[in-house]
Amino acid sequence: MANEKFEKPTGTQDILPGAVEKWQFIEEKARDLCRRYNYREIRTPIFEQTELFERGVGETTDIVEKEMYTFKDKGDRSMTLRPEGTAGVVRAYVQNKLYGEPDVTKLYYMGPMFRYERPQAGRYRQFHQFGVEVFGTADPAIDAEVIALGYSFYKELGLNGVKAEINSVGTPEVRAAYRSALLAFLEPMKDSLCSDCQSRMERNPLRVLDCKKDQGKFGDAPSILDSLDEECSTHFEKVKGYLDAMGIEYEINPRLVRGLDYYTHTAFEFKAQGIGAIDTVGGGGRFNGLVGQIGGPDQPGIGFGIGLERIQLILEHQGVDLSAAKQLDVYLVALGEAAERELAKLIYELRSKGVSAERDYLGRKMKAQMKSADRLQARYTAILGDDELARGEIALKSMETGEQRTVRLDSLVQEFV
Amino acid sequence: MANEKFEKPTGTQDILPGAVEKWQFIEEKARDLCRRYNYREIRTPIFEQTELFERGVGETTDIVEKEMYTFKDKGDRSMTLRPEGTAGVVRAYVQNKLYGEPDVTKLYYMGPMFRYERPQAGRYRQFHQFGVEVFGTADPAIDAEVIALGYSFYKELGLNGVKAEINSVGTPEVRAAYRSALLAFLEPMKDSLCSDCQSRMERNPLRVLDCKKDQGKFGDAPSILDSLDEECSTHFEKVKGYLDAMGIEYEINPRLVRGLDYYTHTAFEFKAQGIGAIDTVGGGGRFNGLVGQIGGPDQPGIGFGIGLERIQLILEHQGVDLSAAKQLDVYLVALGEAAERELAKLIYELRSKGVSAERDYLGRKMKAQMKSADRLQARYTAILGDDELARGEIALKSMETGEQRTVRLDSLVQEFV
Repeated sequence: MANEKFEKPTGTQDILPGAVEKWQFIEEKARDLCRRYNYREIRTPIFEQTELFERGVGETTDIVEKEMYTFKDKGDRSMTLRPEGTAGVVRAYVQNKLYGEPDVTKLYYMGPMFRYERPQAGRYRQFHQFGVEVFGTADPAIDAEVIALGYSFYKELGLNGVKAEINSVGTPEVRAAYRSALLAFLEPMKDSLCSDCQSRMERNPLRVLDCKKDQGKFGDAPSILDSLDEECSTHFEKVKGYLDAMGIEYEINPRLVRGLDYYTHTAFEFKAQGIGAIDTVGGGGRFNGLVGQIGGPDQPGIGFGIGLERIQLILEHQGVDLSAAKQLDVYLVALGEAAERELAKLIYELRSKGVSAERDYLGRKMKAQMKSADRLQARYTAILGDDELARGEIALKSMETGEQRTVRLDSLVQEFV
Repeated sequence: MANEKFEKPTGTQDILPGAVEKWQFIEEKARDLCRRYNYREIRTPIFEQTELFERGVGETTDIVEKEMYTFKDKGDRSMTLRPEGTAGVVRAYVQNKLYGEPDVTKLYYMGPMFRYERPQAGRYRQFHQFGVEVFGTADPAIDAEVIALGYSFYKELGLNGVKAEINSVGTPEVRAAYRSALLAFLEPMKDSLCSDCQSRMERNPLRVLDCKKDQGKFGDAPSILDSLDEECSTHFEKVKGYLDAMGIEYEINPRLVRGLDYYTHTAFEFKAQGIGAIDTVGGGGRFNGLVGQIGGPDQPGIGFGIGLERIQLILEHQGVDLSAAKQLDVYLVALGEAAERELAKLIYELRSKGVSAERDYLGRKMKAQMKSADRLQARYTAILGDDELARGEIALKSMETGEQRTVRLDSLVQEFV
């Protein structure tokens, strides 16, 4: 029985010391950016009522149809581990009546999401996202701000070749008109298209243009940008104007559609030089219909979601090293039993004053302890023998210069603060 | 359909701006303490194989018998949302062979845990814990260090009246001998004890002494400390010696047992002045048998777990305010359309340079924008009209002193860095 080994569930990760520091660095960057942009954190539950995702993500999406971790709780209610971040945040915005506040609501979230997919490089069943959502304004300045925030996040992490692709998917009315125009273009070539395209023609014709196989046939397809009404055009022009003013690198991609029906106006994706190809590293858009769909008042919204595993995979591929080596301030060595006890007091004091300090717990010889100090990249070692202790002193050695000197025990803390 | 409202699952929380800053403060404190004590973070999956918790927490515990969120995944494997942090960390320690490293393994974790309990004040079905686990040493210095780390966490958060209660629960052999002595003491009074006590006498006699009802009858009960063998006594004496040297406030409580069978030697709980009574705010102990039980090599371990909701409830009750008000550096106001575009550029530059900056997105009048600046506790407001823009200038006003002056647009960033 004691020999049975346990393993983590397929598609999940243990993030261990050595790797976890990269995660901490990325999260601190996201938090600091959100501070500068005045976005505040929101934390919603890890699981929600299943219906929330059916409504908020869409019943006919792959996520809801195939990929959710759904279970009955002990009260026989159907719950689902959140497969994405937006639905929960919108639910919380509505339930907590955040729309009643005088200012625009600017939120960010970070944390685990869950989809039962086939695991592959950079894709996990428990994965992690950083996202923002803004509610309460249709001002194109906020569309540009959200894009700028995402763009800055990648740039400041050191990702190379980042740019934004943007599009306007208009209003539902605009899309209905464009849909007809597009179908009129596609119908004559329908039999020559792949089976995916044919099925998309029925369910979501805008996504046909995405097809990797048939893309070459769509050169003369109508562009949604030609279908925009004046309100949509003006909004889109203003977004571009702000992006120009800020100097954000972007391209217009009239074929960029973000799947879900509730998207309106601005849709965008972030691209970077990935593994052999240009990769999508995040994306988002405006969703002026979603708050109402979740049972809230008619409030506009916009946001993005960025997968943190994917970013790390690409940063690594690009040779960007995030691991800021964290040095230890001092490694303490005690020689003898009386010194041992004094050292416990000393290390407690040092740590209480903000100094990072470590010692041996394996009764090892001095030489082995010094190796530990090296592994921890200690700036100093401090050695306390019975003689030094009797004199109220400790030997302090700089590991960088090799310089060694004697310091009064009661002033050791001052050496580090 | 659009009028249906969604609610968060019973027993879960939305942590909103205004409250989330307290969480961030507590988490930063935990991270900073762990840096000083040289503990490194580990992140394990939100769910694990159900058997792991049956083995690691104990099949006959309330947690495993009644409180787990268990479900079948799409591969028909039984999974459970983690009800506590230790089992997953031990599993990761074993699976990733961390015991192969030359130094002692000192880990911390923070995150959501899940138990299907009746919700009440400070108790949630999704709750959050901070915990540490150390593997690979039986040195009593580490027992004292782990207690000191927890103690410092409460102290530095400002919790009043914190102290540690400690005990030694010995080895399994010591406990077996004590169990017999205790049963010999309890047998004669069995009929006078409450039904809980009677049932505990059969399942876990050490916990009988915990009973709130019958406690008065146990004054002459034997103490486990009298049953300790020499190895256990020596270990316990050393732990106390180190705690004395560090000046940690602690009491010995020979009735403190931590339920689970795998605990050995040091057991401890942290107490604080709570709501009307002394409350337990966290606890832990040494578990020299657990790593083997999970299928790993025979490595000693020790750790604690601290519930973050409970701490916040008690801090609030004690009147300790954690909300460090975060000021905004500058609120920017544009008057006119050309200024609007320049402002988008300016705010992007400020934020890119580390300055926190905000603006209006609702087309509001200047007065309403100034109210927003007040709500955000902006240190400065910067007002850009078409006249200032033509001169390449902006009006900068200190919200603290009321002083106003004109600054060159291209040197605004320098005012803040």
